[in-house]
Amino acid sequence: MTEHIQYSPDKDALVLLDQRYLPNREEWFECRTTDDICFALVVMVVRGAPAIGVTAAYGCYLAGREVQGMDGDWKANLNAKLDQIEKARPTAVNLRWAVREMRRVWQEAGDVSLDALLTVWLARAREIHEDDIAMCEAIGRFGGALMDDGDTIMTHCNAGALATAGYGTALGVVRGAVDQGKKVSVIANETRPFLQGARLTAYELHKDGIPVKVACDNACALLMKRGLVDKVVVGADRIAANGDAVNKIGTFGVAIMAQRFGIPFYVAAPVYTIDPETPTGDDVPIEDRDPREVTHIGDHRIPPEGVEVYNLAFDPTPNELITGIITEKGVLYPPYTEAIRKLFDK
Amino acid sequence: MTEHIQYSPDKDALVLLDQRYLPNREEWFECRTTDDICFALVVMVVRGAPAIGVTAAYGCYLAGREVQGMDGDWKANLNAKLDQIEKARPTAVNLRWAVREMRRVWQEAGDVSLDALLTVWLARAREIHEDDIAMCEAIGRFGGALMDDGDTIMTHCNAGALATAGYGTALGVVRGAVDQGKKVSVIANETRPFLQGARLTAYELHKDGIPVKVACDNACALLMKRGLVDKVVVGADRIAANGDAVNKIGTFGVAIMAQRFGIPFYVAAPVYTIDPETPTGDDVPIEDRDPREVTHIGDHRIPPEGVEVYNLAFDPTPNELITGIITEKGVLYPPYTEAIRKLFDK
Repeated sequence: MTEHIQYSPDKDALVLLDQRYLPNREEWFECRTTDDICFALVVMVVRGAPAIGVTAAYGCYLAGREVQGMDGDWKANLNAKLDQIEKARPTAVNLRWAVREMRRVWQEAGDVSLDALLTVWLARAREIHEDDIAMCEAIGRFGGALMDDGDTIMTHCNAGALATAGYGTALGVVRGAVDQGKKVSVIANETRPFLQGARLTAYELHKDGIPVKVACDNACALLMKRGLVDKVVVGADRIAANGDAVNKIGTFGVAIMAQRFGIPFYVAAPVYTIDPETPTGDDVPIEDRDPREVTHIGDHRIPPEGVEVYNLAFDPTPNELITGIITEKGVLYPPYTEAIRKLFDK
Repeated sequence: MTEHIQYSPDKDALVLLDQRYLPNREEWFECRTTDDICFALVVMVVRGAPAIGVTAAYGCYLAGREVQGMDGDWKANLNAKLDQIEKARPTAVNLRWAVREMRRVWQEAGDVSLDALLTVWLARAREIHEDDIAMCEAIGRFGGALMDDGDTIMTHCNAGALATAGYGTALGVVRGAVDQGKKVSVIANETRPFLQGARLTAYELHKDGIPVKVACDNACALLMKRGLVDKVVVGADRIAANGDAVNKIGTFGVAIMAQRFGIPFYVAAPVYTIDPETPTGDDVPIEDRDPREVTHIGDHRIPPEGVEVYNLAFDPTPNELITGIITEKGVLYPPYTEAIRKLFDK
């Protein structure tokens, strides 16, 4: 796949494949300012926790470039812009992580000029970008080993190349299994309301020649009952200190059903998705998004005018429903509180 | 609500409110022939097990009118048309029930002329139509008594006025509770792929001034976990002799989640939805519908070209997940095999 997050030195812009229009149109969206970055995050030109992290890192750099042309105290101006980026979306911890990492680098650099800071920041953003690629491959190796030849793997939402800078977390596991010579196929839950499964997961797997079939989210229990699902692998937007995993709305239900049918349920995510500061999944703020994502498909309104809708974007899957958490440093198993503590003590 | 199934003697036609275009447009579809009836059933101009039964009863009468103009043995011609109607859709037992009921009436009438049979059949179709209205009210009375003041009731698909000739089965329970002076509100699962919840349930409750909010099917577990759902009430397309209830795809998952959260899960359906000839839910044929219902919303294609989809239309909810089955003759409780045997022995 073409890289969907590209920093262009010529344009001094972050160029993003606009995921709102996939798979129908491949349009590119150029971010030059903090507002561009925040818009891209909020409307989901780019989405997926690791991709959000990489975008935010470049976003801090672009914020600095923007501040160069501004009057007043550049440090205060820059801090305000970093705050703006950090608050663009509430759930994925990777956004907060990336902005804090850039602040840490700033602090470490000491009393530097803005020009000097920008040089350091661009280098660090590129590193985070490259780390993400390596992280996906490591998750693919560890996770791929857990998949069996002939498996049909159900996934929810899109935790693929389009959700990372690399080849995906959940879909990294699928690609890892394929790299290991296993024949696997995927059931992509369409994932209402934003349809990341039907649009993005189907798009990128089909492009790579990995067999994929789309199912309405409603089909989950019946497909599992019919023995059509061997494993479930999903991504995560934030993993709490106790292993509860917050991911796209509907994941919790899939996990409950997987448990009923004795189907292994894996979460694939980089270590920095784990937030030791968040005790449980219930402590994660759940984003309440624009109702229009539910009421409209394209320009077509579905429910009658005047009827309200819920559009909660994420849900927390409790740790007891999770068979294993696949990270770039290996697979974590229950009890997760202990496993996660050990991971961060290293 | 305006009656959505109307037999017009002037037009000698069955006139149906075309549910494909709700809530955006109120268009009427006129059935004069067997092909018209079968088309209306297959593409879901009319849907919902009891409404299918009423439509099929009038359909048999219209088939007879059509045969009046045909050459050859009218009995053979008519039987072929009845077979065609009976096979229009496989899952709802009410379709088969209605056609068999018309055959029984024919047999009972003995060696009558086609003209005489048509008179008897039209009267019987009208009776089935009126019985359906009375049935809904009785279900509403029994079911309404199970609801509490202040309840939020989750429902899946549309088991409302639009799925019956009366005021609904699952939504009959809601309306029954309202009639009993209880303040209740409804969460309508949007019910992909055909969106009966977002379109039809929201439409008819909103029209009646009953508070309704639409949620993506994916939100179910989180809404239940947050304590926002007090009861679940759904309809059924066929109930097996052991109480397993086959209903719109996704119902099974909702039942699994309701069990996890200790939320009562009721099925509301007329007695003739129970099929003593079907031992369990796994013995019910599950309709595999046109993939376009999943791949397209309006003219807008969602997954990339070349990607296949599942479009299984129903799933069986096992009896152990069902708190009670609300019929027009009272509420059945476990063990269902016994309760159903008693009901039919009466």
